Amino acid sequence: MGFDPGLATLGYGVIEKGKAFKPQMIDYGIVSTPKTENLAVRLCMLEEGVKQLIAKFKPEEIAVEELFFAKNVTTGINVAHARGVLLLTAVKECGRLFEYTPLQIKQALTGYGRADKHQIQTMVKTYLNLKSIPRPDDAADALAVALCHAQTNRLGKLFSI
Amino acid sequence: MGFDPGLATLGYGVIEKGKAFKPQMIDYGIVSTPKTENLAVRLCMLEEGVKQLIAKFKPEEIAVEELFFAKNVTTGINVAHARGVLLLTAVKECGRLFEYTPLQIKQALTGYGRADKHQIQTMVKTYLNLKSIPRPDDAADALAVALCHAQTNRLGKLFSI
Repeated sequence: MGFDPGLATLGYGVIEKGKAFKPQMIDYGIVSTPKTENLAVRLCMLEEGVKQLIAKFKPEEIAVEELFFAKNVTTGINVAHARGVLLLTAVKECGRLFEYTPLQIKQALTGYGRADKHQIQTMVKTYLNLKSIPRPDDAADALAVALCHAQTNRLGKLFSI
Repeated sequence: MGFDPGLATLGYGVIEKGKAFKPQMIDYGIVSTPKTENLAVRLCMLEEGVKQLIAKFKPEEIAVEELFFAKNVTTGINVAHARGVLLLTAVKECGRLFEYTPLQIKQALTGYGRADKHQIQTMVKTYLNLKSIPRPDDAADALAVALCHAQTNRLGKLFSI
């Protein structure tokens, strides 16, 4: 199961590794929180949403993208708050958590470290044999990190308890 | 109860408001996590530490400083991860959570928005009638936000569930 952290929109993607690296898409989507709500309540909503998803899909392992700093510092702080809650919940509820850098994800999916968002999303569609690119972007990004994890045979940093 | 968020060192300070604004210091200290441990495990340690402190002191209200971006972006991301876990835990375990900007804290304690760290800490010592400035800095900062909250009659942003 892959997650793309965010405060307003947190993406998730669930795949099954399958034989001979024929990964199957199980589900993808987002957990969203309203901007009208305060930060602490939004963090509680994210925790609850992530908990429910992990309970539903019972993933063996979870992969999350590492955070690199955005142009927008305020957005960056919000994402980092959300990501703290995501990592906490993922490691408590699943126990096996891996991190990948954006570079690792790009290389795993396209073999090319400077691939753009569209190239990555196209590879997600191809690998999972989908009719179209998953929407929104947050869900496609979550599937990308899940595929990266499946494909790299768990070369990411393991966080386990 | 005030908290000063941090990943390696999270400070806390507990005060009782008392009559006619004669606040009493109840306790202060830190929750620390080892740099040798991975991020997700450190976030779990922080959650557990904050939970235990709230269970011990049963604060009526919790005050936390707002995050403004540090010079060091990596430290800033770490603090924001830790702060996400702190806000989540505080609002779940206590229910009443307030945020103050550094400016509000400085003005509440010294009447001066450009006061330096030492001036703030000296006022913490004076208000709480302590023999010396509380150490480490994280604990003194946590007492400062608690005092700010007591003194400003809860002018901070209320986060409640």
